[in-house]
Amino acid sequence: MDLIKKISKNVRSATYSATQIISDSLNAIDKYNPLIGSVTITLKDRALATAQHIDQLVAQGKDPGPLAGVPFGVKDLFDVKNITTTAGSVLLADHAPALKDATVITRLCNAGAVPVATLNMDEFAYGFVTDNTHYGITKNPHDTRRFAGGSSGGSAAAVAAGMMAFSLGSDTNGSIRVPASLCGVWGLRPAYNTIPLQGVYPFSETLDTIGPFCSSIHDLKCIFNILSDRKDHGKQDISSLKIARLKGWFERDVDQEILNAITEITSIGIETYNLTLDHIETVRAASFLITASEGGTLHLPYLRKEPLKYDPATRDRFIAGALLPVSTYLQAKKIEKWFRHYIHKIFGDYDLLIAPATGCTAPFINDPTVLVDGKKSSARVNLGIYTQPLSLSGCPILSLPLNRTGKLPVGLQIVAKPGNEHILFEFGALLEAKGIAKASIQQQGIYNV
Amino acid sequence: MDLIKKISKNVRSATYSATQIISDSLNAIDKYNPLIGSVTITLKDRALATAQHIDQLVAQGKDPGPLAGVPFGVKDLFDVKNITTTAGSVLLADHAPALKDATVITRLCNAGAVPVATLNMDEFAYGFVTDNTHYGITKNPHDTRRFAGGSSGGSAAAVAAGMMAFSLGSDTNGSIRVPASLCGVWGLRPAYNTIPLQGVYPFSETLDTIGPFCSSIHDLKCIFNILSDRKDHGKQDISSLKIARLKGWFERDVDQEILNAITEITSIGIETYNLTLDHIETVRAASFLITASEGGTLHLPYLRKEPLKYDPATRDRFIAGALLPVSTYLQAKKIEKWFRHYIHKIFGDYDLLIAPATGCTAPFINDPTVLVDGKKSSARVNLGIYTQPLSLSGCPILSLPLNRTGKLPVGLQIVAKPGNEHILFEFGALLEAKGIAKASIQQQGIYNV
Repeated sequence: MDLIKKISKNVRSATYSATQIISDSLNAIDKYNPLIGSVTITLKDRALATAQHIDQLVAQGKDPGPLAGVPFGVKDLFDVKNITTTAGSVLLADHAPALKDATVITRLCNAGAVPVATLNMDEFAYGFVTDNTHYGITKNPHDTRRFAGGSSGGSAAAVAAGMMAFSLGSDTNGSIRVPASLCGVWGLRPAYNTIPLQGVYPFSETLDTIGPFCSSIHDLKCIFNILSDRKDHGKQDISSLKIARLKGWFERDVDQEILNAITEITSIGIETYNLTLDHIETVRAASFLITASEGGTLHLPYLRKEPLKYDPATRDRFIAGALLPVSTYLQAKKIEKWFRHYIHKIFGDYDLLIAPATGCTAPFINDPTVLVDGKKSSARVNLGIYTQPLSLSGCPILSLPLNRTGKLPVGLQIVAKPGNEHILFEFGALLEAKGIAKASIQQQGIYNV
Repeated sequence: MDLIKKISKNVRSATYSATQIISDSLNAIDKYNPLIGSVTITLKDRALATAQHIDQLVAQGKDPGPLAGVPFGVKDLFDVKNITTTAGSVLLADHAPALKDATVITRLCNAGAVPVATLNMDEFAYGFVTDNTHYGITKNPHDTRRFAGGSSGGSAAAVAAGMMAFSLGSDTNGSIRVPASLCGVWGLRPAYNTIPLQGVYPFSETLDTIGPFCSSIHDLKCIFNILSDRKDHGKQDISSLKIARLKGWFERDVDQEILNAITEITSIGIETYNLTLDHIETVRAASFLITASEGGTLHLPYLRKEPLKYDPATRDRFIAGALLPVSTYLQAKKIEKWFRHYIHKIFGDYDLLIAPATGCTAPFINDPTVLVDGKKSSARVNLGIYTQPLSLSGCPILSLPLNRTGKLPVGLQIVAKPGNEHILFEFGALLEAKGIAKASIQQQGIYNV
């Protein structure tokens, strides 16, 4: 049974108490976090007080909501009341605590969910590894010698390690899809402008999105509906979907085993059509340059005042971005416009596009590289090589954990037209039911409830 | 009687023939243009053939439309079928002729209007004087030793000199309002995104608008309704308008005589409230930088290939713009966002804002300067000092010719909330009726019909 559904059902029926579930979660953090380095702050007092309140509601015969007692964590760029939002930096560490929760946290809390922790990330979300010079490296729960991926690595690893039922991350260029892929959990980059960013530390106005990590597709859909304040679409007919498999750039440096795992889809009778997108290398460059420009501009006042408080790797990228000539940025914005129009036309011919989320499993921490055009290149910069260009489309993108028994996890991106999230969820559920995707990842921590 | 109404009424009733009116216009061009330098190409064959067709329709009892036989001209950045759009450059002069008319020309022609000429401008619309190194200076019909203003100087001067009934120009930073002010005609910068730009050579995506020059407010409203494809709003009650007179920046370098002429409004019983807008110098800088950035980016490929084909004054500004750091541009875009929000709030308290369109009458060609903070500065760059910041608001802005008998013309800007153009027209008509604004400017050329 899906974890979130199971927890909330048991809490609402008083089978378990919320206090028990939240304690389990806090204990799992105590037990696993020293190995993983996923949690930055545990919200113990708030979480237990909230759980107690939920249990009181249940005792009074009141409904605490569809997420009753479900423990979750947030990347440390979401405002949590009374906690300072660091965005993974020391620069902001001495700023005042947030006066209120980010809008999405309020939505989740109103549904009965309980925030238990803030989670580690690359400084200012600028990286694909969660190698944070101030707060440490988040390690992959499947092999702690490896990266969890980033920048929302703390969020992905916390769910994969069973410390909490779900988590929130942000995805500008792939910061949800990359760690979801490497940690073997479900992640969603929602369509641009679908979920309110109020109370979330920004990076790139053109590309920023926020979304959930979960251990099953049903859970993911449930959380998305609450984050986006949408009604469930109900059952969809997906018997005649036309699915394009992205070739060319999207397979250039991908492990053969991963390509084989994707081909497995055809084994359950789903036809895929090969499709090579035009100018995708240019689109990736455009994403890269827009992010650098907007991020650099955002940070320029701080960079002028306190440059030494930045992680050197982040600092140099921001400075380079802020100083790009405007003509480069405006040309990149023109490519964005073209690409959105182009992808819209592609969705006239196809319902879904599929591509690997990463070209490899999690890199070793002592060899922080990935292949780009056959050459070893920085993992921090290039792990998102397949997620980054698709960000610029503005489309909702699922990262689905492929079922590869005995092997390290890797994710499959599934792209739909904005507004067609329900097709993503339905198709994901089909792949989960048919064993192409993995449902629940770890049998530890709160997964034992 | 208003000129356009008069011409079309007489043509539709066969009182005059369209052929006669168009010939009058072409003759007026032959007579006055050698002095003024307003027209770049006369569309004689097309104009006479169209006029003949209109006369045939009238003879057959058919209606050629509300602008039947009305001669007009367009700034040489509007596509006219079979004519090369130069945008005032020699760079584009050997490009292929346009395959079709710009959308707005088609709308006007469908209403029976007849294009008679293309009109001079600053190269690529980058200037406030219409001093074009390739196609000459457009002189002010009120005093040919003086500038007509720019960049749509050919359009304003052609109407002021009675060569045609109306004309089209473009206004990015004030290129309609400045020459309307100096030539003593009515001009309108429509709200951003109101009138289609298809077939118009671009300058700045953030700021470009196109609009008409006319010799009366009724004509202006009539042309605006056709350009924007809108129905007339009919009579409006403007008895309780609250009008703010912009102070501070907007009066700093303005001739006392012009300030007095504006104060005349109160003599007809209209109360004005003094209002100083916040940060207006920063807003002007933002407009300036956005224009330079977007214009420079547009021209960069040409600047790399054929820099020597540019007017040196334009070339240097474009190159400087293209190379601005992106952080400067994005900060300017943030100011735009703030200013639009701020002006929206201002329109919660007031219905209209008024300010001079220029701080002086037309400068002498042999002394191409205006005062900025008391110092003589380039007229090409600074004549639009009062129009430029208001462009960034996105609001519709009328430039109304103040009635100053025996003196050189100068215009008053009237700003309304987007969508409230009908209030602008109604208030303009009131000021025309009360003698604050001048109705018909010249008694020459086609004004004798």
